[in-house]
This record gives sequence, structure tokens and C-alpha cells, in this order.
Amino acid sequence: MSDYYSQENHGPFELIDIGDLNLEEGGQIPNCKLAVSIFGTLNAAKDNAILIPTWYSGTNKIMEQVYLGEGRALDPAKYFIIIVNQIGNGLSTSPSNAEGELSGAGFPYVRIGDDVRAQYKLLTEHFGLESLALVVGGSMGAQQTYEWAVRYPEFVKRAAPIAGTAKNSEHDFIFAETLAEAIMTDPNFNAGNYASAESVADGLKRHAKLWTVMGWSTDFFAANRHKALDFESMRAFVDEFMTGYFAPMDPNNLLRMLWKWQRADVSRHTAGDLAAALGRVQARTYVMPISHDMFFPPSDALEDQKQVTNSEFRPLHSIDGHLGLFGTDPAMLEQLDSYLGELLRS
Amino acid sequence: MSDYYSQENHGPFELIDIGDLNLEEGGQIPNCKLAVSIFGTLNAAKDNAILIPTWYSGTNKIMEQVYLGEGRALDPAKYFIIIVNQIGNGLSTSPSNAEGELSGAGFPYVRIGDDVRAQYKLLTEHFGLESLALVVGGSMGAQQTYEWAVRYPEFVKRAAPIAGTAKNSEHDFIFAETLAEAIMTDPNFNAGNYASAESVADGLKRHAKLWTVMGWSTDFFAANRHKALDFESMRAFVDEFMTGYFAPMDPNNLLRMLWKWQRADVSRHTAGDLAAALGRVQARTYVMPISHDMFFPPSDALEDQKQVTNSEFRPLHSIDGHLGLFGTDPAMLEQLDSYLGELLRS
Repeated sequence: MSDYYSQENHGPFELIDIGDLNLEEGGQIPNCKLAVSIFGTLNAAKDNAILIPTWYSGTNKIMEQVYLGEGRALDPAKYFIIIVNQIGNGLSTSPSNAEGELSGAGFPYVRIGDDVRAQYKLLTEHFGLESLALVVGGSMGAQQTYEWAVRYPEFVKRAAPIAGTAKNSEHDFIFAETLAEAIMTDPNFNAGNYASAESVADGLKRHAKLWTVMGWSTDFFAANRHKALDFESMRAFVDEFMTGYFAPMDPNNLLRMLWKWQRADVSRHTAGDLAAALGRVQARTYVMPISHDMFFPPSDALEDQKQVTNSEFRPLHSIDGHLGLFGTDPAMLEQLDSYLGELLRS
Repeated sequence: MSDYYSQENHGPFELIDIGDLNLEEGGQIPNCKLAVSIFGTLNAAKDNAILIPTWYSGTNKIMEQVYLGEGRALDPAKYFIIIVNQIGNGLSTSPSNAEGELSGAGFPYVRIGDDVRAQYKLLTEHFGLESLALVVGGSMGAQQTYEWAVRYPEFVKRAAPIAGTAKNSEHDFIFAETLAEAIMTDPNFNAGNYASAESVADGLKRHAKLWTVMGWSTDFFAANRHKALDFESMRAFVDEFMTGYFAPMDPNNLLRMLWKWQRADVSRHTAGDLAAALGRVQARTYVMPISHDMFFPPSDALEDQKQVTNSEFRPLHSIDGHLGLFGTDPAMLEQLDSYLGELLRS
């Protein structure tokens, strides 16, 4: 296991064994461990629990740093907040930390539904929860949020999918494929049996470059937002910030998350009928795309929102695009907090 | 020279030798040949000539098929229309058809300014023109259009840059870099000394996939426009249409055009002062971005337009995005014809 995925970098988190997890694609993760970070206290009525799943490449740490805080919507003084790292992200059971046959390229293909079933087991059996006041997540966290609201409609009282959709689009599938190919075409990738993550640095850099192009927005760079973030040029932004961000990550971890992202689809519950799947949602739902998101655009999010009964469309404005999720735009975070606060009070 | 770049596929075009072309980056193309396609007749006043430069990967043929026609704005019955293939596109002097030292990977780096000086020589010395009623082009054709209007302000009476900007953005530079890397990382690319273009098929396919993601728009696929174009799935659209389009092209040709595209910048004339460069334009100019263009967005085009004195901002609406240039959206072509007709009458 690489040092990157350490308690020092991402902790404190607790590893909780939820037992064997049977996977939708077949096979099993024996003794699946979820890395969990907890804030606040569960009240006597057990009705103040909030679940936050993680996005592609993210861990509990960025969710804590960017979204939680005293006096903010997600306030540990009021809520019992559980951040659960997705399977494959390097903290929960993942290619980089699994042993034996499941290690590295031998790691099985995991779906969003597997994560959500694992999280349900965790919340009900380990924490004894009977409901969630809110599920909120961005990007792949939004995909898990929709999956929660469709799969366990009575359990989820409120839902806030940010910058993500209920069914991944064909366009997004191909974008994610270009990300995967950037890594897999590195000659040192060797079908996932690489000597070290460092040896795949070139592929990881190309992957970071694609994220630079699609992750922010044309307006972000036109407005010199990357310079405002203290990078003197686009090149420095690519080489230092974006490449630096992804470089220490494990390629197989990223690829298993990509595979999962591409196939997110709540209509798997209803034989492909998306309206029927979203019709199951009982949660009060705020659908929150980011205005300049290039691959989960507001137009796609609006189509989802129209099909959720008790929902509102609350787009967030930011030229930072999808990666505004990183918390780079304080005004967007304020807008988000305002909407989440309103949703939690409703 | 590959069969793809043949008279059969792209003709009729004439190869006109404009003599030796000294290049801005140093070096020379001896006996530079421009592939030219001509329609209509020059009138006695010599004031009805229209120049159409080509875009990345395009040739005179698509410009003729999509943009010219009887009763349309660019009507050969009224205008003397000259379509000039850009250097490096496979018809004009290019890596794929140059001989000796300039062949293949030995081909020099050519800038937009080199193309425009070559075209100026062609128009003045070969055709005896003293002015152009209009320069109109899309994408890299727009880059050449701006270069024409800044470099030869008295020569160009009207200008219509479509889906392109006067100075390539940093964002676009990185996007183009991902396209180049998709080709160059193919193990068979061999630093440009590949056995055949066919041997670089994998790299060309990845390049086509990136074009699929950024060239159209998320809305295009969400609205199933690819299915309306007779492709049953996104996969078929990528594999058959996009990959099929780029597969027969020569990798070195594409890479030299990419290099040129990345560095387009009229402010090279004014020590980096874009406002000063655009302030030189005398042409009546219609700036026409495409609404859903993901890398030459309307917001960037608007900044250009504001700095051209005698100009108007005329965005074209199409969810087809940048590749609406291919003529896939008849409504956009109608809008374009209407604007171009108005510009030509002014």
C-alpha cells in the first residue's frame, strides 16, 4: 500500500469490516473494509445522521475540509456525519490494499450498487441507523446519492446529488474511456501489473491533462482563475497542480473507479426505465449541477430532476466547472451551503 | 502519398507553385504548392473574390459541399470563390507529399502567418487580385481569417471568422496537446517515422475519441443527434464515423496542423497586445461562434469581437457544437447563410 493512502494524509479514518460483499458483476470481496470518517453525535431520536459518499479519486479528507464546518450547513455540532470512502479509492478495500488474488489487477469490478449496499450494511448493522436525514455527494458521490434514494427510498429522507446524474451519459462514458486509455497506454502499465505506480507516471500525467481540459471550463482559464489559484501559467497548473494531484495515486484504483463511474445507472432497478426508477425516490431532493460543468451539464441534471417527485432544481453557479467541487470558488460554496441548509430545514 | 489525399476524393483541385516560402520559425519550403479549388468568375472590377481557408483535417471538398451553392450566400454564380487548402493538410505541400528532407517527420513547423503570406502571394501574383470581398473560414480557417484581416487590413473588405478565435486560448492549447499525445503515444508512431499511417491506427482512434468528446457537445449526445445521423449507438458513432473520418489521414500531417493551431495568435504582430492587433482590422467583420462549442466558446469569441471596430457578434445556435462546422445541422447552416448574405450585402 502506497504511503499516499495513509492516515497521515487522509485520517483520521476508521476501517470497518462489513463482512463479505457479493458483487453485482459476480464474485465477492471477502471481509470488505470501508474507511469511514465520523463527525458529531447521533441524537436519541437517531434522526440527525448524514451520509457523504466520495467521488472519483477523492477521500473523506477533502469532503471534511471543503464541506464540513461549524456554522455551516453540514455542521458536526448538529449532525452525525459519516463520510464513507468508496470501494477502490485506496482507503476502503481497493486494488492497492487488497491481498492475494484480489490485489492489483486481480481486483474485481465493483458497481455503484455494491458500494451502496455495503454502506447500507455499515449504517444499519454497525451504527444501528434507521434513516438518513440526508445523503449528499458530488460527482460519483452524486451517483451513489441517487442509488441510495432509489434503492432505499424510505431510509433516505433528503438527497442532494451535486454535479452528477442518475444514469451516466454516453458522452460521459466516452470521456471516462479517454481517461482510462491515457493510463492504460503507458507502456509501463503492463495490463495492471506495473512495477510501481511511479513507473506509470507518464500515463497518469496524460490522465491529469485530460482532467485539466474537461474538469474545469474554458471560462475558468479565460478568466485566469488558475493564476488566481497561484499558478503562473497553464503549464504550471497542469504540471504542478493537476499532475501533482493524481501522480501519487494507484493506477488500478483509478481504473476500477472509472469503470464504476461509467456504468452508474439507477434504471438497472427498473429494466432500463429511468423515469420508473426516479419515480421511486421519496427523499426531498435538491438537484445541484454546476453551471459550467462540461460532462455533467445542468441540462442533463434537469432531466433527472423533472422525474423526482419531491424535488427542486438548484444549479450552482461557478466558472470553475466540475472541479469547483474541490472548493476553489468560495461563492459557490456559499450558494451550496445556503441550499443545503434550506433542504435540511425542510 | 496516401490515396486518401487524391483528386478522386478531394478534387478537382489545382496545385499552384507559389515559389519558395520562408517560414516564421526559420527554414523554408522550396517551391511551396498550394492546392486550390476555384468556383465562379472574377468580375471586371475584381471586387467579387472570396477566400476560404481550411480547418484542421479539412480540405477544399467539405467547404465546397457544405458551404457553397446556387442561391446560397457563397454563390459561385455571383462570386469568384477560391478555397485554399492549408499547408500540411495533405493536398497543399505537406509531410505526406513532400520529398527529400522535408518528407514526413522532417517537415518544418509552419505557422498561420506562413499560410496567410503564401495565400497572399497566390492571390496577388497568380490571380492578380487587389482585394477580397470576404475571407470566411471555420476553426483554423477562422484563425487564418483573423490573420488575414490583421496582416492585410486594406486588402480584406469583409471577414467572417466562424468557431475560432484571434489568439488561441491556453485551454485550447492543452486540448490540442491531448490530441497530439493520443497519436504520438502509439508505439508504432516511432517519432514520426512510422511504417505506414495504418500502423498508427490505435493512436488515430484515440485521437478520434477525444474529438468525439470535445468536438460535439454533451447536449448533442443527450439529444441523440448521433442516432439521428444514422449511428445506432455512441460506440458506432465513435468507431465508424469519427474513427473512420480520421483513420485514412497521415499522422505527421495532423501533428503539423495541430502545432500550427495551438500557436495561432494575431498579437504576434503587436508584441502581444491583442487589442492593438485587432484594432488594425478594417474589414467589416461578423464574429460567429457556435453556441455549444466546447473549445472555441462564444465567450472567447465575444472578447475578440469587442476589439474589432467595424464588427458584429453573430453567434450561431447549434447543439452540434464545434463540429456543426461539418454541416450536420441544417438550421445552423441557414442561420449562417443569412448572416453571410447580410455581411456580403453590407
